[in-house]
Amino acid sequence: MTGNLPPTLSPFLIDRLVRSALEEDLGRAGDITSQATIDPAANARAVISNRQDGIIAGLTFVAETFHTADPDLRVRMEKADGDPVAAGTILCRIEGNARAILSAERVALNFLMHLSGISTLTAAYEAEIAHTGAKVCCTRKTIPGLRVAEKYAVRCGGGSNHRFGLDDAVLIKDNHIAIAGGVAQAVNAARVHVGHLVKVEVEVDTLDQFEEALSAGPDAVLLDNMSPAMLADAVRINAGRVTLEASGNVDLTTIRAVAESGVDYISTSKITMAAPTLDVGLDIEIG
Amino acid sequence: MTGNLPPTLSPFLIDRLVRSALEEDLGRAGDITSQATIDPAANARAVISNRQDGIIAGLTFVAETFHTADPDLRVRMEKADGDPVAAGTILCRIEGNARAILSAERVALNFLMHLSGISTLTAAYEAEIAHTGAKVCCTRKTIPGLRVAEKYAVRCGGGSNHRFGLDDAVLIKDNHIAIAGGVAQAVNAARVHVGHLVKVEVEVDTLDQFEEALSAGPDAVLLDNMSPAMLADAVRINAGRVTLEASGNVDLTTIRAVAESGVDYISTSKITMAAPTLDVGLDIEIG
Amino acid sequence: MTGNLPPTLSPFLIDRLVRSALEEDLGRAGDITSQATIDPAANARAVISNRQDGIIAGLTFVAETFHTADPDLRVRMEKADGDPVAAGTILCRIEGNARAILSAERVALNFLMHLSGISTLTAAYEAEIAHTGAKVCCTRKTIPGLRVAEKYAVRCGGGSNHRFGLDDAVLIKDNHIAIAGGVAQAVNAARVHVGHLVKVEVEVDTLDQFEEALSAGPDAVLLDNMSPAMLADAVRINAGRVTLEASGNVDLTTIRAVAESGVDYISTSKITMAAPTLDVGLDIEIG
Amino acid sequence: MTGNLPPTLSPFLIDRLVRSALEEDLGRAGDITSQATIDPAANARAVISNRQDGIIAGLTFVAETFHTADPDLRVRMEKADGDPVAAGTILCRIEGNARAILSAERVALNFLMHLSGISTLTAAYEAEIAHTGAKVCCTRKTIPGLRVAEKYAVRCGGGSNHRFGLDDAVLIKDNHIAIAGGVAQAVNAARVHVGHLVKVEVEVDTLDQFEEALSAGPDAVLLDNMSPAMLADAVRINAGRVTLEASGNVDLTTIRAVAESGVDYISTSKITMAAPTLDVGLDIEIG
Amino acid sequence: MTGNLPPTLSPFLIDRLVRSALEEDLGRAGDITSQATIDPAANARAVISNRQDGIIAGLTFVAETFHTADPDLRVRMEKADGDPVAAGTILCRIEGNARAILSAERVALNFLMHLSGISTLTAAYEAEIAHTGAKVCCTRKTIPGLRVAEKYAVRCGGGSNHRFGLDDAVLIKDNHIAIAGGVAQAVNAARVHVGHLVKVEVEVDTLDQFEEALSAGPDAVLLDNMSPAMLADAVRINAGRVTLEASGNVDLTTIRAVAESGVDYISTSKITMAAPTLDVGLDIEIG
Amino acid sequence: MTGNLPPTLSPFLIDRLVRSALEEDLGRAGDITSQATIDPAANARAVISNRQDGIIAGLTFVAETFHTADPDLRVRMEKADGDPVAAGTILCRIEGNARAILSAERVALNFLMHLSGISTLTAAYEAEIAHTGAKVCCTRKTIPGLRVAEKYAVRCGGGSNHRFGLDDAVLIKDNHIAIAGGVAQAVNAARVHVGHLVKVEVEVDTLDQFEEALSAGPDAVLLDNMSPAMLADAVRINAGRVTLEASGNVDLTTIRAVAESGVDYISTSKITMAAPTLDVGLDIEIG
Repeated sequence: MTGNLPPTLSPFLIDRLVRSALEEDLGRAGDITSQATIDPAANARAVISNRQDGIIAGLTFVAETFHTADPDLRVRMEKADGDPVAAGTILCRIEGNARAILSAERVALNFLMHLSGISTLTAAYEAEIAHTGAKVCCTRKTIPGLRVAEKYAVRCGGGSNHRFGLDDAVLIKDNHIAIAGGVAQAVNAARVHVGHLVKVEVEVDTLDQFEEALSAGPDAVLLDNMSPAMLADAVRINAGRVTLEASGNVDLTTIRAVAESGVDYISTSKITMAAPTLDVGLDIEIG
Repeated sequence: MTGNLPPTLSPFLIDRLVRSALEEDLGRAGDITSQATIDPAANARAVISNRQDGIIAGLTFVAETFHTADPDLRVRMEKADGDPVAAGTILCRIEGNARAILSAERVALNFLMHLSGISTLTAAYEAEIAHTGAKVCCTRKTIPGLRVAEKYAVRCGGGSNHRFGLDDAVLIKDNHIAIAGGVAQAVNAARVHVGHLVKVEVEVDTLDQFEEALSAGPDAVLLDNMSPAMLADAVRINAGRVTLEASGNVDLTTIRAVAESGVDYISTSKITMAAPTLDVGLDIEIG
Repeated sequence: MTGNLPPTLSPFLIDRLVRSALEEDLGRAGDITSQATIDPAANARAVISNRQDGIIAGLTFVAETFHTADPDLRVRMEKADGDPVAAGTILCRIEGNARAILSAERVALNFLMHLSGISTLTAAYEAEIAHTGAKVCCTRKTIPGLRVAEKYAVRCGGGSNHRFGLDDAVLIKDNHIAIAGGVAQAVNAARVHVGHLVKVEVEVDTLDQFEEALSAGPDAVLLDNMSPAMLADAVRINAGRVTLEASGNVDLTTIRAVAESGVDYISTSKITMAAPTLDVGLDIEIG
Repeated sequence: MTGNLPPTLSPFLIDRLVRSALEEDLGRAGDITSQATIDPAANARAVISNRQDGIIAGLTFVAETFHTADPDLRVRMEKADGDPVAAGTILCRIEGNARAILSAERVALNFLMHLSGISTLTAAYEAEIAHTGAKVCCTRKTIPGLRVAEKYAVRCGGGSNHRFGLDDAVLIKDNHIAIAGGVAQAVNAARVHVGHLVKVEVEVDTLDQFEEALSAGPDAVLLDNMSPAMLADAVRINAGRVTLEASGNVDLTTIRAVAESGVDYISTSKITMAAPTLDVGLDIEIG
Repeated sequence: MTGNLPPTLSPFLIDRLVRSALEEDLGRAGDITSQATIDPAANARAVISNRQDGIIAGLTFVAETFHTADPDLRVRMEKADGDPVAAGTILCRIEGNARAILSAERVALNFLMHLSGISTLTAAYEAEIAHTGAKVCCTRKTIPGLRVAEKYAVRCGGGSNHRFGLDDAVLIKDNHIAIAGGVAQAVNAARVHVGHLVKVEVEVDTLDQFEEALSAGPDAVLLDNMSPAMLADAVRINAGRVTLEASGNVDLTTIRAVAESGVDYISTSKITMAAPTLDVGLDIEIG
Repeated sequence: MTGNLPPTLSPFLIDRLVRSALEEDLGRAGDITSQATIDPAANARAVISNRQDGIIAGLTFVAETFHTADPDLRVRMEKADGDPVAAGTILCRIEGNARAILSAERVALNFLMHLSGISTLTAAYEAEIAHTGAKVCCTRKTIPGLRVAEKYAVRCGGGSNHRFGLDDAVLIKDNHIAIAGGVAQAVNAARVHVGHLVKVEVEVDTLDQFEEALSAGPDAVLLDNMSPAMLADAVRINAGRVTLEASGNVDLTTIRAVAESGVDYISTSKITMAAPTLDVGLDIEIG
C-alpha cells in the first residue's frame, strides 16, 4: 500500500461541529421562512457546484449536515475531498424533504466554502514547490474551534500538519531557551519531561543558534525568518541529521526560493484562518 | 442618551467560545513545552500590540482567555473594542504566572487577529459610504460556530447586523415565492405564521418584482444584483415606504456607487468569514 | 399556499428536551421496577388517549420520547398537534418492547399533559375573540428551560408568539425610557443599535405617552393596563399606523371586551406557565 | 438536633438550571433593549417582593441567577425559602450594574413565581391535614427538566417527596403484578433484584389485594382511588405494619377526609406541574 | 416470573460512557496509524475471547463501542453479561470496516477487562458464602465517573448494590450521631427529612450502640469492624427486626466466617475500584 | 533549569473530572444524610492522611473537589503530588462548612486512593530499575474516562507516558504491517501520512523483524515478548540508532532483568487500571 491514502477526519469531530453549526443557525424557532411558505410534505432535488476552480474540502461536512438536519435526505457525492475541480462541477446531489434541504443549505455551504478555500490555497503553495522535496505545513493560527477541520483541509490540499495543540509536540522558543539557560538545557529538559513518543523541535534565528541546537539533538529545528541563502547554509550544516522547517514571510511569491534551499517543511499561517473562500452554490428544484 | 453605546456581547457566549478554544489548544496534556522548561512559580509581564493600523475587536475575548486560563492573571486594557489604533499601539497588559500567559497566548491572539480583521475591513467599507445614509451589513455567511463573535466584530467596525439565524427574521427568496404562488402570497403566509415582533423581508431581482413586493407590504426588500441605476430607480419607487437593502457584487471599489443610489443597507459576506487578519503580537518579559 | 401550515418545532430542540427528561427520570439505575418484574423480551401494545376535551400539543414529543427510549418501538400517530379532540380519543399507538414502553410512559405523558394544557387554554382564549381581528399571544413568563416548547403549544392552540428572548426584538419599558430621556430618544437609540430586521416595540400606560410613542415611529406599541375604552381611543388615534398590543388583567372573562377595542394582539402569561394540565393516559396490554 | 432543618438543594443543580435558563433568555445577542438604552456603567437598586400571601420558594434560584448574570451584583436576602410571607413583603434586594439586573430579572422571577406557587399550594394542602398524622407528597408528574426544583418547592411548603425517578425506589403497579404472577411474586422479584437500601412499594385497588400485598411484606402500599372509609379499613388491617399512602381524586376539599382515615401519606400531582404561580415583582431604581 | 432476571443498565448511560471513552482515545486526529496503513475500504473479521476463566461483564459496552465507532459494523454476541466463561471462550464476533474495528478495539477491551475483573472477583466472594443467606455488596468506593458501570458489574457477578450516591439512601455515621445527639435523634431526624421511599441505615461499632440503634427503628444497621462472634451476637439480638450489614476487613479468606454469623449483607470496596482485570483479547483477520 | 520539574495536569481537565464525579455522587437530592442531621451553619476541621507508605498523587484533585463543592472551604496542602509519604502522614487540612466537607469526602478520597495507588506502584517498578538507564512507562490500557489522570499519576510515580491516544503517535503492529506489505512500506506510509512532529514506532516479535524495522528508520521500536537475552541482542544490533521499548510479561519480579538488557523503556499496563489503591482516610472534627 502506498502512502497516498485520502485524508480522514474522525466522524465524531465532524458530527460535533456540524450539530453545533446547525443549532447556531436554526436557533429557537428554526427556519421560519420555510415553515411559513413551504409545504411540510414538499420534496426537492438540489445540486451543489463550485463557481471557481479549486481543490474541494468539506464534502464530508456537507453530507453530515444534510443527514443531521434530516436522516431521510439522500445525499450522493459526485466528488471527494481532495479532488481538483473545474468551475461548474457538480459536487454532490441531495434529494428529499424541501424544507430540510433549505434549512441546512447555508451551514453546509459555509463549511464547504471555507474549507475548500483552505485546500485550494494550500494546493497553490504546493504547486510552487512541487519540484523540490519540501512540503508546506500549517500552524496553530487557526479559527478557534475549527482547528481539526482546517488542518484536515490543509491535508486535502496536499499540505502537511504541524502540531494540533500545545500538548502533542514540544516547540521550544526564545523565552523557553532564555529561562532554561540555553538550547541544550531546554532540549534536555523537554526530553526528560515528555514521553519517548513526543517530538522536540527548537526555534532558532541565527546559524550560531542553529549549530548549538543541532548539538542538543532535537527531532526538528524551526529556522525562523532566514533568507533562502541562510536556509541553504543551514541545510548544508545539518547534513541530514534533523528535520528542518522554515517559517516567516512566506507567501506565494517567496515560497519557491525558500523551498529550493533544501528545507523539509515550510510553515505558514496564510493557508488557514484567512484563506479566501471558494465560491460554491446550491441550486434547488422543488416539487 | 445617544445611540452610540459601544457594542456588547453576552459574557456567556464569550465564555463558552473561549473555554472551547482553550480546550482545543491545551488538549490532553496541556502546554508541555512550558511545563518542561518554565518554573511553575515564574512570573511574567506581557503586552499585546497591533502591528498594523486597524479597528480593534476581540479584546473582550483576550481578557476572558487569560482569566479562564488562570483567574489570578491581571489583565489591564489600554484600548477597547471598536477603537481605531495605529500600528504599534499597546492594546493590553497581562501580568502573572509565566506558564499561564504562554499557554493562553495563541488562543487570545487567534481571536484578536480574526475579529480585528473583520472590524477593520468593515470600517473600510463604512468609510467609503460615510457620506451617504447607507450602512454596510453582514450576512449568514460566517465561520460555523463563530457567528455571534463575527457579527459582534462587524458592529465594532461600525457595521450593522443582518439576521443571526434562520429563526429571528423572515427572508423570502425565489424558491419560497415560487411555491407560495407569488410575492404577496408569500408575504401574507409569513405574516400569519410569525409573531408581530418578527420582520419580513423579500428578495427581488427586477423592478417589476419590486413593485409587486411593495404592494404586499413587507418590512424590507432585498434588491439583489441590481446596478446602481436600477437601485436608484427602486429608491424612487419606494418613496420611503420600506427599508431597502442591496446585495451582490459589492466590494470596496463598488460600494460607494451602490450607497449613493440611496438604499438603506448594503449586505456583503466579504466582511466576515474571510476578512484578512489584523497582525497582532504578544511580547513577554519573564521573571 | 395559504398561511395555515401546521406549527413546527425544530427536531433538534425536541430531541434535546426529550433526552434530558428521560435522563432525569431514569437516573442512575433505570426503571428498576420493570427490570425486576418484566421479562426483557416481553412485548406490549399501548394506546395514549385524552380523558378531557381539548386541543392536543406535544405528540411530537411523545413520538420522540418513545423513539429515544428504544429506536425499535413503533409509534403510530392517530392525531396531530393542533387537532381538537373529544375526551376518549385515541391519540397514538405504541408497540414493541414492554419495558421500554413502561420506562418512557411518564416522560411522554408529562410533556403531553403540560403542552396540551397550554394549547387547550390558548384555544379557549382564541374562541372568545374569534369574531374580532385580535389574536392572543404569550409572553416571556414561561417555565425555565421549556420556553420553545410552551411557545409551540401556544401556536398549536391558535395563539401567536411574542419575543422568544431578550435578543430577538426590542421592548422598551418605563425604565429604559426614563434613562434614555424620553420615548423618542429610546426608540431612536434602539433603531441605531439593532439591525434593520429587528422590530422595536414601546410600552405605554397613558394616551399621552401613546401619542408621543407614535411620533417616534416604533413597529409596535404595548398598551399596558388600559381599559377597553382607552384601548379603543388608542386604536382610533393610531389609525392603522403601528401594531397595537394590549396587556394587563386579561382573563377568559375580560378578553372579549379587550379584543373588541380593535387592538391587534392581546398578550397574557396565563396561557403558559401555569395552564391547567390536560388529563391524558396510557393503557397498555403486555404480551 | 430536631428534624426541622430547612430544605436544601444541591448548588450544582441550581447552577445548571439557572445557567440554562439565562442562556434561553439571552439568546445570541443578549438584552438588546438594555444595550441600546442603558449606559453600560449605570447602577441600580432593586427589590423583589410578593404581591400575594404565600410560602416562598426559589430565592436560592434568584440569588444564583443574579450572581451568574454578573458576579459583581450584590444580593441581600430578606427572607428564606420556606418562609410564609404576607403580600407586599420585600424578599430580597439587589444592587449593582443596571443592565445586568434588567437582563436577569425575568429569569429570576420565572423561577420564583413557579416554585413559590408550588410551595404555597403544598402548604395549603398541609394546613388542611395538620391535625392528622398524614403528610402530602408529590409524584413524578412534574415539568420535564425541573423535577428536582419542583420537589424542593414541595419540601419548602412542608410537603414530602415521593420517588425522584424510576431508579430510586420500586413501585409495583397492576401490569407488573400481572406479569410477575401475583403481588407476592412481584414483591419477591423486586427484593431479589434491588439492593437492601431500596424500598419496595405496591399499588393496590381493593382490600383483598391489600391483604395479599401485606403478606408479601413490602415497605409501603399505595392505596389507589379508595374512599375514606375503605382507607380507614386498610389502616385497621395494616395495624402499623407498613407505610400507607393514599392517592386518587385528592384536592383541597377532599384531602381532610382522606387524611383522617389514618394513612401516612397522601400523594397528588396537583401540587407540582400546574400549581398557580405566586405573583411576585421587581421594582428598580436606576442611577 | 422468578427473580433471576439478568442485570440491566440504561442504554443512555452506556452510550454516554462509550462515547466519552472513544473521544478520549481518538483525540483530534483519530487513529492515525490505521489511516496511514489500512485501506479505507478494507474489511475484517474479529473475535473477542477471554484468556482467563471468569464471569463476563461489559459485553453491552463492547457492542455499543463498535456500533458507535461505525454503525455499519455487525456485532454478534456469543455470550451475555453474567455468563461464566472458561479461558479461550469466544465472547463476540465483529465484522465490517477494518479501520473502524481497529480504532475501537482498545476502548472496547478496556471496558471489558475492567468490568469482567469486577464481576469475576464478586463471584469469587459469592462462591465463598453461597452456603449462607448472606450476599456481598459494593460501596461508594468506585472509580470516579464509572460508578454505574462498576455497580452493574457487581450485579453481573451475583453481588448486590449498596447506595448509588449520597442521595438515594441515608447512612448515618458517627459524626452524624454525635451532632444529632444520639442514634435515636439521628434516625428520627432522617425520617422527618426524607420521603417515605428512602431507607435509613445506621453504622455502629459496638453491641451497645447496636441495641440503641435497634430501638430507633432504622431500616438497616451497618455493623462495622466486628468479629464474627460479635456479629453472631448482633444477629441474635436483632431477631430478624432489621437488615444487618457487616463491613471492615473483609477479604476472600475472611468473608466465609463473616457470612456464617448470619448477617444479611457484607459490603467491601475490594470488589470494585481495584479488582484485577480479566485478560481478554481481540484477534482480527483483515481482508 | 533542570528537568525535574513536578508533573502538571491542566486545571481544565481536573475541573471537568471533579465536577462530573461530584455530580455522580450527589445525584438529584445531594447528601441527604448530612442535610437531615448536620446544622447548615456548622463548621468542621478535617485532615486527610495516608494509612500506608506510598507516593502521593491526586492532591490536586482533592483540592479541586473541596473547592468545587464549596468555594469557601479552606484547603491547606501539607504534601504535594509526587511526594513519598510514610504511613500516618497528614497530607492536607480542610476547614469550613461541615456539610460541604462531608459531602465531598468520598469523591476526594476516591481520586486520591486510586491515583496514589498508581504512583506508588509505578515508583516500585522504577525502584527495581533505578540502576539502569531504563524507565517504566504506561500504555493505553487505562480506565475509560480517566486516562489523563492515570497518566499523570504515572508521572507522579516517576514513570514515563506512552501515547495519550490513537492520534498523537503512530504505533504500527502486525496487522498494519501485513496489509502495508512489510515493515518498510508501513513506516514509509506513516511518514507520508503524518506531520513531521509525530513519531513513528513499530512493534516486532523477532530479531529478523527488528533488523528489517531498523532499516526503515522509525523513531522507536517496540520489542514485544522477548527474553532479556533477545532484548540484549536487539540493543547490540541497534547500536543507539532508535529508541527501544520492551513489553510483555513485565512484573515486579521480572522488570529488573528486562531493564538490564539495555532497553530505553519498559511498558506495562499493570501500573494503571488495576493498581491496588493506597489506603487514605479523612478524620473530621465538627463544631
